[in-house]
Amino acid sequence: MTTVPKLLVIGGVAAGASCAARARRLREDAEIMMIERGPDVSFANCGLPYFIGGEIGSREVLAVQTPASLQSLLKLDVRTGCEAIRIDRANKRVEVRHLDSGSPEWQHYDKLMLAPGAAPLRPALPGVGDARIHTLRNLQDMDRIVAATASGMRAVVVGAGFIGLEMTEQLHRRGLSVQLVELQPQVFPQLDATMAALLESELRHHDVGLTLGDAVARFEPLEDALRCHLASGKTLDADLVVLAIGVRPDTDLAREAGLQLGPQGHIVVDEFQRTSDPDIYAAGDAVEVADRVSGGRTAVPMGGPANRQGRVAADHMFRPDLARPFPGAQGTAIVRAFGAVAGITGWSEKRLLAAGTPFDTVTVNDHQHATYYPGARPLTLKILWDPVSGRLLGAQASGFEGIDKRLDVLATAITGGLTVEDLCHLELAYAPPFGTAKDVVNLAGFAACNRRDGLVSHTTALPTDPWVQVVDVRPRPLAEAYPAPGKVINIPFATLRANLDKLDRNRPVVTLCAFGKMSYFAARILRQQGFAVTSFSGGLKANIDPRTPARLPSV
Amino acid sequence: MTTVPKLLVIGGVAAGASCAARARRLREDAEIMMIERGPDVSFANCGLPYFIGGEIGSREVLAVQTPASLQSLLKLDVRTGCEAIRIDRANKRVEVRHLDSGSPEWQHYDKLMLAPGAAPLRPALPGVGDARIHTLRNLQDMDRIVAATASGMRAVVVGAGFIGLEMTEQLHRRGLSVQLVELQPQVFPQLDATMAALLESELRHHDVGLTLGDAVARFEPLEDALRCHLASGKTLDADLVVLAIGVRPDTDLAREAGLQLGPQGHIVVDEFQRTSDPDIYAAGDAVEVADRVSGGRTAVPMGGPANRQGRVAADHMFRPDLARPFPGAQGTAIVRAFGAVAGITGWSEKRLLAAGTPFDTVTVNDHQHATYYPGARPLTLKILWDPVSGRLLGAQASGFEGIDKRLDVLATAITGGLTVEDLCHLELAYAPPFGTAKDVVNLAGFAACNRRDGLVSHTTALPTDPWVQVVDVRPRPLAEAYPAPGKVINIPFATLRANLDKLDRNRPVVTLCAFGKMSYFAARILRQQGFAVTSFSGGLKANIDPRTPARLPSV
Repeated sequence: MTTVPKLLVIGGVAAGASCAARARRLREDAEIMMIERGPDVSFANCGLPYFIGGEIGSREVLAVQTPASLQSLLKLDVRTGCEAIRIDRANKRVEVRHLDSGSPEWQHYDKLMLAPGAAPLRPALPGVGDARIHTLRNLQDMDRIVAATASGMRAVVVGAGFIGLEMTEQLHRRGLSVQLVELQPQVFPQLDATMAALLESELRHHDVGLTLGDAVARFEPLEDALRCHLASGKTLDADLVVLAIGVRPDTDLAREAGLQLGPQGHIVVDEFQRTSDPDIYAAGDAVEVADRVSGGRTAVPMGGPANRQGRVAADHMFRPDLARPFPGAQGTAIVRAFGAVAGITGWSEKRLLAAGTPFDTVTVNDHQHATYYPGARPLTLKILWDPVSGRLLGAQASGFEGIDKRLDVLATAITGGLTVEDLCHLELAYAPPFGTAKDVVNLAGFAACNRRDGLVSHTTALPTDPWVQVVDVRPRPLAEAYPAPGKVINIPFATLRANLDKLDRNRPVVTLCAFGKMSYFAARILRQQGFAVTSFSGGLKANIDPRTPARLPSV
Repeated sequence: MTTVPKLLVIGGVAAGASCAARARRLREDAEIMMIERGPDVSFANCGLPYFIGGEIGSREVLAVQTPASLQSLLKLDVRTGCEAIRIDRANKRVEVRHLDSGSPEWQHYDKLMLAPGAAPLRPALPGVGDARIHTLRNLQDMDRIVAATASGMRAVVVGAGFIGLEMTEQLHRRGLSVQLVELQPQVFPQLDATMAALLESELRHHDVGLTLGDAVARFEPLEDALRCHLASGKTLDADLVVLAIGVRPDTDLAREAGLQLGPQGHIVVDEFQRTSDPDIYAAGDAVEVADRVSGGRTAVPMGGPANRQGRVAADHMFRPDLARPFPGAQGTAIVRAFGAVAGITGWSEKRLLAAGTPFDTVTVNDHQHATYYPGARPLTLKILWDPVSGRLLGAQASGFEGIDKRLDVLATAITGGLTVEDLCHLELAYAPPFGTAKDVVNLAGFAACNRRDGLVSHTTALPTDPWVQVVDVRPRPLAEAYPAPGKVINIPFATLRANLDKLDRNRPVVTLCAFGKMSYFAARILRQQGFAVTSFSGGLKANIDPRTPARLPSV
């Protein structure tokens, strides 16, 4: 590196901006140039949907920094409207073209940061070029969607990941009627299906049309609509379509430069964000990094990891002796759909199953704070752990309030390598407005330990074999108002001990209730009375209907 | 243990009820008897203040369980209005007196659980017997306070711990004018003083009279008031006084039985909650347990540890081979005063100082979620760590929203033995309504690592030596509207690089700003320019005025 080193940063949003800012703090004398294809740097891309719906009222607040502010705060030479078109690694230079003038020039670097991000997928379907079909990556995309929409229009959102869900809510808020189409048989496919059920219920409650397990096959322009033909044959007519079916890493430049790419086209980096060229670093949505749960490789296109990776890279460029590695990503994600919230950290059940990784799991229900304090809302928590060590592998939560808090606690637990035994004794902040003396995270630990210790067997599927006796231990009015599916014997818990003779001791029993707690209590009684018994983990709420109440208003 | 074991539980609230419930699940056939002096079992004692203020509207919801419900759910033999007056350890029996009839009887036990709780302190001050002086432990105390109060009355609350603060808010909500008296020079004395400043500001904002660093010396009954004479000579006249100056463990029974007690009178238990008699267990507010941070001993009279200790004890009684130890308590606590919230987990700075434990600390400010999303409110986070290992020793947070979440994350980090380096890379749930791409917890990790790596020196006190140059890098309008105390040179950050000649390179510099972020940026520039520079950690907000804004509305 020369005495006055030059850092060239390609991409000026999360990872690129974080890298440049950290580099400036470490080297006041460095020359730092930022190349950005778009007109904006360091903008709040996660906020774009919320502006479309008017929840964020001012466009200005989304422009977190400007080229001028980055110059005055960080002494950065910011070149917006500039595209990097070629890396000449041998001579450590990048060819840059100004999009206005079209004139190319070479920029030298001592260290190069690639933070190109990821582009929304736009599959080559018939009719996909129609001007009414949008994707959302930057402020200009946002402006186009705002300009194209008005109250009363019909929108089709394709893809029910977090951008699709946010767009659905915000277009609804803008007054459009919205149809949401998702290839998977559930929304928010990162989650296990049962944990996404509350989001689906909430979407339907707000008159969002849900088409799950289906995909757009082609678009047909009609006079007054764009007709979306789905693979199933179903058609949806729209004034506007938003494609939110995922992103692909924007790594053509890296590929052409001969940098090592992963199987999905992500730039491969080491723990200090170095690519296969030691003077070229990469960070953000375009890279693959270590998976913090499995130790394998993963790509997590989210703002948090991007920002922190940019910082790690700058540390390694300018003070390699003190640099600390990026420890990997664990895929923490959260989404809100109207009043409902759901999220995940670590691995889901379906991902563990697909990988053939052994796991065990429980689902528990409680409320975000003491039920006797006003405003208590139900929430559901599912945890997954390694059956040998008990180490937490993943967690999912859904509900209305306090979902982010439980995810953050469990994300921290995964980072710390905590076991389900450790969850039992987390000492979380408790006063009635904030939590409960035994938080739902503690309860999940208790339930997992009960399972590990063989105190209870769990199932998440009601038996189809009529030989199995299904015992619903809810109070009779509740059992009648919200009946469990199939053939069920109702023995309210309080009367169970006196009614054991109603059950055949030679046949297995599954106990069920609303939340999975009373069914566990019942299973303990029956087990100690000699029954072969299994408890329906998480109850009807977690497995059948996420809105199953714990009690009737009048009970 | 006999074939049908008998568990006798003394005390029917958090620890006792949890122990009995867990015991029942483990041993359906056990005889379980619960002795409770009061008329209620398993009531929501943490909810009592909120009923007084009307925030909880129904008294019934505070009675979580009744003797009848415990009988039907758990087959418990509950004896309310019964007092245990003597333990005959040699014969494994307890003498119990019915408070109504006065008639004593002996109850045998195989296992005995002592969960007597703690009683509010009532110091022997002159006049303390006046009927207008209240404490708050149970529903009857609550009912007395409700009956004694009406809008327009004057209340004096003595003690600004969490019960005192909750009572202050709720009496104010009930329409009383409230004076709060605290012996320490701050409210919520578990916290370091600067972290309690927002609570104090909020209390004053709601016209609560604050008298700090003072104590009641005597009470004088007047015709129309109870006059509180403070040690300072100040007097406060009240229609009602609430003493909330702490609790003492209710351990006379244990002492008389010859069980080992700790220096403050708490029952000494091992990691399975066993007292010095292996058939007698104890849990809850009356015991001392391991301190999870220091490894020493501590007493944490809170509902969370009490519940979990009761469960540990039952496990050890009835399945000792599978029982897991109680890992200790770390003193997590949270309190709300009107709109402001503050809390702690682990050790405070003053506690570490008093113990002579080496530590290092930083304070950072941010918001609970993305500032561009509506409703962003400032919060302040202080962390303390071991300077050798970097292991987190404690954390405190104050603000308006999201305080519980950060405390819970940091409580989990302490449990996991995480270091400040680990905090940098916690992957927390982020979408604009829930957090930021770099959460304040990550920022605290960054700041701590910067300090550990020698990138910046911090101070939390402005210099008194006039030789030191204090540079305020806030924009001029803000610096003028909210001036920093003392002699200060204002050089707005954006102009700092161009104005280095305004500073004497031979004199040390302290940089300051509103939040501690720009002062750090400035310190990095000055350091690299050869200045001896220190940044004012946490800025004016954390050290001088918790309501210092980051920017003026018009700027």
